[in-house]
Amino acid sequence: MRSGEHGALAIMVRTTDSPGSLNTLTRVMGGHGANITYVDIAERLEESSTVYFELEDVTDAGALMGDLGALEIVGSVDEAPSLAKVYGQRIIVLGGGAQVGQVAVGAVGEADRHNIRGERISVDTIPLVGEDNLADAVRAVARLPRVSAVVLAGALMGGEVARAVEEVREKGIISVSLNMAGSVPDAADLVVSDPVQAGVMTVMAISSSARFDVRRQKGKRY
Amino acid sequence: MRSGEHGALAIMVRTTDSPGSLNTLTRVMGGHGANITYVDIAERLEESSTVYFELEDVTDAGALMGDLGALEIVGSVDEAPSLAKVYGQRIIVLGGGAQVGQVAVGAVGEADRHNIRGERISVDTIPLVGEDNLADAVRAVARLPRVSAVVLAGALMGGEVARAVEEVREKGIISVSLNMAGSVPDAADLVVSDPVQAGVMTVMAISSSARFDVRRQKGKRY
Repeated sequence: MRSGEHGALAIMVRTTDSPGSLNTLTRVMGGHGANITYVDIAERLEESSTVYFELEDVTDAGALMGDLGALEIVGSVDEAPSLAKVYGQRIIVLGGGAQVGQVAVGAVGEADRHNIRGERISVDTIPLVGEDNLADAVRAVARLPRVSAVVLAGALMGGEVARAVEEVREKGIISVSLNMAGSVPDAADLVVSDPVQAGVMTVMAISSSARFDVRRQKGKRY
Repeated sequence: MRSGEHGALAIMVRTTDSPGSLNTLTRVMGGHGANITYVDIAERLEESSTVYFELEDVTDAGALMGDLGALEIVGSVDEAPSLAKVYGQRIIVLGGGAQVGQVAVGAVGEADRHNIRGERISVDTIPLVGEDNLADAVRAVARLPRVSAVVLAGALMGGEVARAVEEVREKGIISVSLNMAGSVPDAADLVVSDPVQAGVMTVMAISSSARFDVRRQKGKRY
């Protein structure tokens, strides 16, 4: 979001790299009543770093950027399109390489149709093996920014993975499972047998334009 | 990374949600000499927020977590596996839905073989239309965490997209282009005609185990 929409502002700040510099920047932002929602060290060089900030509740973007630019530790302050505006909502697909690839084909194809009409939906994937690795990845979905849905794409998943699916569902993240062995399908919001169709339906479930309410699908298997 | 590896530490801090609370947390971290590399508001509820931090140069993780936990505004502090450990390096694939899906199939299949051997490679995608949207997305790759390579997957890309590819290459991000019309193939490190092969070669180029040096490939077309 650009400044103006709910006081949102995304900026790149070039600063000297020291433990204290981030603290100085956040103090100035706090002084303007801004809420910091995201910070990432985008580039770190010998003498300086470029830090990317996403802020909310910014009342006067020009004044805030001016105050930051006036700091001795700051080289430049530039507004940037936010990652929400460029990459939008994310779907995370994880599991076996064969199935993850086919879910991606379906989800990317459907996301293309939505993004052409002005939405922004990204499809992110990781192929993984093993109950602990998969459970860690499902739980980490809640720590990734902008995630709306997770797709479990494998042939056998249960135990700790199913518990992780229940945890992220409680945080409001939609979960879709391929029809597979193990207890993960029972933990998911929606179960789909064909991986391409699973990708398409997941995009429909998170889209702002599609008329597909995953809450009405609970327990259904396609 | 867990604490110990270069003093890296990833923690989830539950705190009261106010503009000043992040500033208080970063001051305590700065006091321990820790460098904050990443901050995300992972969950925001009525009365509290959960903030995810990645830190470097932490000399005593226990003491730092103890000092944070002792703050009045902090409810809990928990160590978590870092996103680098769970999701690893990222490849971003962007362009037309048909081509992006097939690049994903190749990249996910190859990443599976590497991740089974202990690496962590994610394949992230967005289907997009239009020179400005594509150029914005390529430039934003430099602001996304953990990105090692970008794949341009379309039939015609040039102008502002080619300039954006040159900018991210200068920041050390490997660029791979499908063989297509426009000036993007000339701007890329590597040009590959088949989208599945393009996905496979991109994973090989960023892998720590594969013997494929993209710097020796400059100007080659497969």
